[in-house]
Amino acid sequence: MPIYNAPLKDMDFILNDVFKADEFWQANENLAHLDVATANAILEEMAKFSKNVILDLNRSADESGGAQFNLGEVKTPEGFKEAFNQFAQGGWVGLGAPEEWGGQGMPKMLTVLADEMIWSTNPSFMLYPLLTVGAGMAINDRASQEQKETYLPKFYTGEWSGTMCLTEPHSGTDLGIIKTKAEPNDDGSYNITGTKIFITSGEHDLCENIIHLVLAKTPNAPAGSRGISLFIVPKFLVNADGTLGERNAVAAGSIEHKMGIKGSATCVMNFDGAKGYMVGNENEGLAGMFVMMNYERLSMGIQGIGASEYAYQNAAQYATDRLQGRAATGVQSPEKPADSILVHGDVRRMLLNVRANNEASRAFAVYVGQQLDITKYSTDAEAVRKANDRVALLTPIAKAYLTDTALQATLEAQMCFGGHGYIREWGMEQCIRDLRIAQIYEGTNGVQAIDLIGRKTTKCSGAFVAEYMAEIREFSNNMPDSKVKQAALNVCEKVEALTQFVVEQSKLNPNFSNAVAVDYLHVVGLLSFVYMYARIHEAARVKAEPFYQHKLVLADYYVAKVLPDLAARAERIYAGADLIMQLPQDYFTAQA
Amino acid sequence: MPIYNAPLKDMDFILNDVFKADEFWQANENLAHLDVATANAILEEMAKFSKNVILDLNRSADESGGAQFNLGEVKTPEGFKEAFNQFAQGGWVGLGAPEEWGGQGMPKMLTVLADEMIWSTNPSFMLYPLLTVGAGMAINDRASQEQKETYLPKFYTGEWSGTMCLTEPHSGTDLGIIKTKAEPNDDGSYNITGTKIFITSGEHDLCENIIHLVLAKTPNAPAGSRGISLFIVPKFLVNADGTLGERNAVAAGSIEHKMGIKGSATCVMNFDGAKGYMVGNENEGLAGMFVMMNYERLSMGIQGIGASEYAYQNAAQYATDRLQGRAATGVQSPEKPADSILVHGDVRRMLLNVRANNEASRAFAVYVGQQLDITKYSTDAEAVRKANDRVALLTPIAKAYLTDTALQATLEAQMCFGGHGYIREWGMEQCIRDLRIAQIYEGTNGVQAIDLIGRKTTKCSGAFVAEYMAEIREFSNNMPDSKVKQAALNVCEKVEALTQFVVEQSKLNPNFSNAVAVDYLHVVGLLSFVYMYARIHEAARVKAEPFYQHKLVLADYYVAKVLPDLAARAERIYAGADLIMQLPQDYFTAQA
Repeated sequence: MPIYNAPLKDMDFILNDVFKADEFWQANENLAHLDVATANAILEEMAKFSKNVILDLNRSADESGGAQFNLGEVKTPEGFKEAFNQFAQGGWVGLGAPEEWGGQGMPKMLTVLADEMIWSTNPSFMLYPLLTVGAGMAINDRASQEQKETYLPKFYTGEWSGTMCLTEPHSGTDLGIIKTKAEPNDDGSYNITGTKIFITSGEHDLCENIIHLVLAKTPNAPAGSRGISLFIVPKFLVNADGTLGERNAVAAGSIEHKMGIKGSATCVMNFDGAKGYMVGNENEGLAGMFVMMNYERLSMGIQGIGASEYAYQNAAQYATDRLQGRAATGVQSPEKPADSILVHGDVRRMLLNVRANNEASRAFAVYVGQQLDITKYSTDAEAVRKANDRVALLTPIAKAYLTDTALQATLEAQMCFGGHGYIREWGMEQCIRDLRIAQIYEGTNGVQAIDLIGRKTTKCSGAFVAEYMAEIREFSNNMPDSKVKQAALNVCEKVEALTQFVVEQSKLNPNFSNAVAVDYLHVVGLLSFVYMYARIHEAARVKAEPFYQHKLVLADYYVAKVLPDLAARAERIYAGADLIMQLPQDYFTAQA
Repeated sequence: MPIYNAPLKDMDFILNDVFKADEFWQANENLAHLDVATANAILEEMAKFSKNVILDLNRSADESGGAQFNLGEVKTPEGFKEAFNQFAQGGWVGLGAPEEWGGQGMPKMLTVLADEMIWSTNPSFMLYPLLTVGAGMAINDRASQEQKETYLPKFYTGEWSGTMCLTEPHSGTDLGIIKTKAEPNDDGSYNITGTKIFITSGEHDLCENIIHLVLAKTPNAPAGSRGISLFIVPKFLVNADGTLGERNAVAAGSIEHKMGIKGSATCVMNFDGAKGYMVGNENEGLAGMFVMMNYERLSMGIQGIGASEYAYQNAAQYATDRLQGRAATGVQSPEKPADSILVHGDVRRMLLNVRANNEASRAFAVYVGQQLDITKYSTDAEAVRKANDRVALLTPIAKAYLTDTALQATLEAQMCFGGHGYIREWGMEQCIRDLRIAQIYEGTNGVQAIDLIGRKTTKCSGAFVAEYMAEIREFSNNMPDSKVKQAALNVCEKVEALTQFVVEQSKLNPNFSNAVAVDYLHVVGLLSFVYMYARIHEAARVKAEPFYQHKLVLADYYVAKVLPDLAARAERIYAGADLIMQLPQDYFTAQA
């Protein structure tokens, strides 16, 4: 059976040595209630829950075929309900939610690490509370006081759950063409009619009510994305006293059969004149939904870290135990029929790629978490402005770059197992199948890249990247000399030139940005990871224990063996868009 | 449902325009019986069979759970038996086998293209005849006349099938430590005892007998790989008159539950004193098995092409049909709610990556096929020597590089579908699951890379690569100027320097080769593909029709957008092995 032990020591290192969480919390009166001991206690509790409760349910849910649909109802895999009750009773649903509504008020810097453990051990399970938390954020941000009072406390006890209903059969990335209608009633409510697909947790048996956040168009709404409003549509209508009333006209029509995350119910939801309540202003629904979307997007990045960490631990253990061949430098274990495959450079290369990805990704998630905490808790307006810009820039990196690298990492981890990696019982192939969706949902990674290069880069003429690099340069310049320092400064120079090129070319050629977006996203991802290694290096170099000194080797490994990808990405960007756009449309499907 | 149409026009272009198959065949008396019309007729027949018979069985086999095991027997998925009978009756099992034994005697240049269609439409199905063909080659190469007469004709009628039994629970890559024993009997036969795992088609219901080729150790055999012999172990013993006799003591203990190729039965085979017959000389079994292995390894590369072509066709059709957003240059289809996603550069980038991979891969397979045909049919000793060296060099490229690039290609094709790519009914996720094994089985791609950099490069001080590059330079120098010509010459220069570095470093550091092997494999792969584009360019540039002119654009695309990977690979190789090897073994599993 697959193993997992939460990397608590690494998490503590990132949180406390690299990002000095304690100082940060103590310096902010809204966070000063939190200290390192409490934070570590929370992580230790989640380490137990993830290992002891949900890890085994991950394989059994997949093997049993996952969530089951029957006559409009969804049965979650065996054990999910008990595990969810335990999770909810532990207060985990509202770990990062406002205390005012029953949450624990923990900062994002900390919750990203707790989330990682759940993503490592049971991604299907994670999706049930995840959407609830996102829906709660959108309601908290946009809804009326009465709506908040009605829904939020029930979310954080785990009694009710939330969903996000955007996609329709003909409308995914392009939400401007949704067809779902909202017809106003005399009482201020609306009748919602339409079909939504790919609705995670649209129907399930873990909670007594499900609160759908639905995008729909009111009569005479403007065409396109400026005519979309946001509605709360509960599965069961809620009485004035908060008890459950009659069943609303919304139901799951079926669930999808998917590559992975089989324990998660991905539903087709039919709204047949279901009663809905507008959230925020008419026609401003998309902005409200993006509060939720941006949260989910960072979460997808953490899904990547979780999978990659799980894959690493299992592959490293397998490689240690598996005996094949002998070391090139001579027999290492003469008492055994063969040496551990860890003696082979190619096996180490794969494991180090995975590990280098994990440590940088985790640091990056905590860094973005800290930026989010600044936007939420800081009272310094300029700091908040900077952090908002930073989060805007880095959300697509967190979502897309962390999941792109994680998929490659899990594939390399699987390869360490040889043929056994292809056999279900080892859990590696499920890890890859479960992770693959993270590159696709919440806006495909291509769409993230277009967001990065467009709204976050060319639109501000590269200002967000420039401010990010000013921070990276300042940090690096203050380091004593090292390979990582030189690499960070060198990458800044290259990214500066590339960004200038991108900004210029996008003005000359409307097709340019879209065609080079993914390469540019990877460039900013590499910049981010080398920055994380600069920070890791700086925190580790002052400590003599092997745990810290090995981090310096890993940082050098990253610079020597992963960062070279930058050269290829840059060449592709400089090659431009013309060769991509010049072939006629029918070239692609003409009989070859 | 997924679509597939064999790319007959592209195949004809590669075979006849690029590699001038007709001239090649006519110049060789052993092949002069074959002409273009016959070759094209064969490909057209296979195009029909693959599309009309096995394509639909691919999805249904996966959905039904694949091959089923019960009390030692394996039931293949519904429809496989009828399809296999049709396949066998069409003479397809022996398409490339010697006419002397009932085969069709077709050259490899042609059979690689027929094989591609089967890999595209039903990889699980393909594996049943594939192992038979491989076993037939080993028997033809190494066995006695009597053994050939007994087994080969039955293989090519499809009455009997073959397997390759190497791996044991503790012994995969390292075959020197196998435990299966062969005890001699007085009649010259042996009793074979041991357990073999991962045996493709080890048990099934398509044929009346199964002939296992088994590696085992005779008493007092030398330790390691020099003490391994090869045995024929039939499921049913064969009487002197060729009829089936009693059941032998070999049986499937179970079948594996796998990530993909679920229609293929991957068996645990238990040999309990089963009667076996030695093939070739004692202790020379590994060399005999490598006849079969090398054949399978090229086949795995073709599995990659097949999957990537299937993925391309489906993704291009989906992208054409899917309407989301508008072109950056203005509305393209005002009559529709949105433009086809083919207007977006990022979607085109993905499709062009896949297509660029397919056309180079296919050309490469035909090129390697031609080299194999030279080794088999040419009477010019120097030509045969050169072709043998070329095949030795390029077999790991065919196996590993073509499957590495194919996996990336199928992932990109899946991404074109957005969320729908994750849903089983579209067939894309199965394509990826089915393909993934090609990087793992028949020697993992890491092992292929070590073979390339070791036996095929450092061992001969780079002579094989040098001779290959002499051919590439000669060809390129004879081309009129173009980007592809310049790129090919430029890559040769870089690979020359890299190979020299690799040869030198491997003498200084025994760990060097293993640690950089995969990067070096990709370097030689990129060299090979740019050479293929030089040849494609040269064949296409003289023809005015768009079909040919578009190939020039694709060649330029390859140079501008895919070839840059070389820069990253080279940097990694120059970074060496030290950072990979310096961490202690317990670093990898120490609690983090």
